[in-house]
Amino acid sequence: MFIIGELINGMYEHIGKAIKERDKSVIQKCALEQVWAGSDALDINCGPASKKPIEDMPWLVETVQEVTDKPLVLDSSKPQVIAAGLAAAKNKLIINSTTAEQGKIDVLLPLAKQYDAKLIGLTISAKGIPQNKEQRLELAAAIVAACSEYEFPIENLYLDPIVLPVNVAQAQMKDILDSINEFKIISEPPPKTIVGLSNVSQGACSRSLINRTFLVMAAAYGLDAAILDPLDKELMDALISAELVLNKQIYCDSYLEAYRKK
Amino acid sequence: MFIIGELINGMYEHIGKAIKERDKSVIQKCALEQVWAGSDALDINCGPASKKPIEDMPWLVETVQEVTDKPLVLDSSKPQVIAAGLAAAKNKLIINSTTAEQGKIDVLLPLAKQYDAKLIGLTISAKGIPQNKEQRLELAAAIVAACSEYEFPIENLYLDPIVLPVNVAQAQMKDILDSINEFKIISEPPPKTIVGLSNVSQGACSRSLINRTFLVMAAAYGLDAAILDPLDKELMDALISAELVLNKQIYCDSYLEAYRKK
Repeated sequence: MFIIGELINGMYEHIGKAIKERDKSVIQKCALEQVWAGSDALDINCGPASKKPIEDMPWLVETVQEVTDKPLVLDSSKPQVIAAGLAAAKNKLIINSTTAEQGKIDVLLPLAKQYDAKLIGLTISAKGIPQNKEQRLELAAAIVAACSEYEFPIENLYLDPIVLPVNVAQAQMKDILDSINEFKIISEPPPKTIVGLSNVSQGACSRSLINRTFLVMAAAYGLDAAILDPLDKELMDALISAELVLNKQIYCDSYLEAYRKK
Repeated sequence: MFIIGELINGMYEHIGKAIKERDKSVIQKCALEQVWAGSDALDINCGPASKKPIEDMPWLVETVQEVTDKPLVLDSSKPQVIAAGLAAAKNKLIINSTTAEQGKIDVLLPLAKQYDAKLIGLTISAKGIPQNKEQRLELAAAIVAACSEYEFPIENLYLDPIVLPVNVAQAQMKDILDSINEFKIISEPPPKTIVGLSNVSQGACSRSLINRTFLVMAAAYGLDAAILDPLDKELMDALISAELVLNKQIYCDSYLEAYRKK
């Protein structure tokens, strides 16, 4: 599983404050803690309160790059904010994200190609979030078709079925899991799959338990990548054990420590 | 998920001693603790050290029946031991188990019909334990065919794909999960599926973590029943959360407690 740490996000008070005050140490500590905990990449999000995200994003990118060469996942709903981050980056890049809307695709796919970035495609249309598996597959197919049109390599596309909170969309959970599995048969080579994990427990109690339960299931359905809190040790233990059961991590008595040292 | 408590088993020292000394209180305490922890049924196994299982099994059945009316799962590789338990039982019954061997099927299927018992069918042949999904499906189909021949209702059959320890058969884990899913398409109505969970972590470290990781995956693959340790609170929390994500248990903030009170 490709693990993307989610904690550099201005919605967290201390990160929002550090962005505003240009306090590098807070951001860099957060970056390193996530890397040490096993992150393969770091999500970078200025947060909803950022008044000048076009300046904040490049500052965050530069700040994080000073301490790690891990790939950066530029997270914004505004293409111009992503463009500003891309221009500042030297690490490998993932754009988070386009939707299936033509207006976004026509801006973000050329940008991804220009910067040799990978791309997260959310199965969301102008009509909003899909309500079942069929709608997810339809939007996924539209994004894959757009990639072909732009000659963007499908291996560099991460499709996100949009994980909804279990306390409001319980009936859709199995559809979301099935989508992770079925996205793979849309094209050959298959697209990769990703989820923003924490959303599954948004507003719920026992958040960590729900998060890790869903992640283990998603891993068994073939999930390739997840944006998550790598400092949640129980979540990481569950993920490592899922990799073990799925034969992606070799068993040894100290398999948890062995994975962490990797 | 239909939860079968595994703890009344003579292989545990205190249970073996209680069987030998005909100490009802130890057995009945073990039965009630498992029921209070959420067991829907109780496995009853005299253990490998029992010198007179044909007497021990009916004693265990009668002892447990004095304190609970939950279904009893008569667990022995010897059909005559199962027959002795069946004759002593008034609770609902599940026979654990037949294999795909004709000699066993020809004894146990008539017994199951005679006592209106459900039946666990292990996908094991005279050649031993299957090494891949195809062999599991072949043996499952043979057991289903035998049930049809004996006019035994398929809804009362629990097929067990044989869970192997992850530290010796890691490459087979995904095949076992896929078998759980694919057993369902062998017949209409479909057979039920079951696993003996604890075997997945036999000889491994982090046993509870591996057990619950596999159980959450198996639940997502459609598993109907599991023989497990219901006193493992983290395992039960994972199972309840799996039911939540799979929309089999309605969300409320106190969903863990709500399930336990049920």
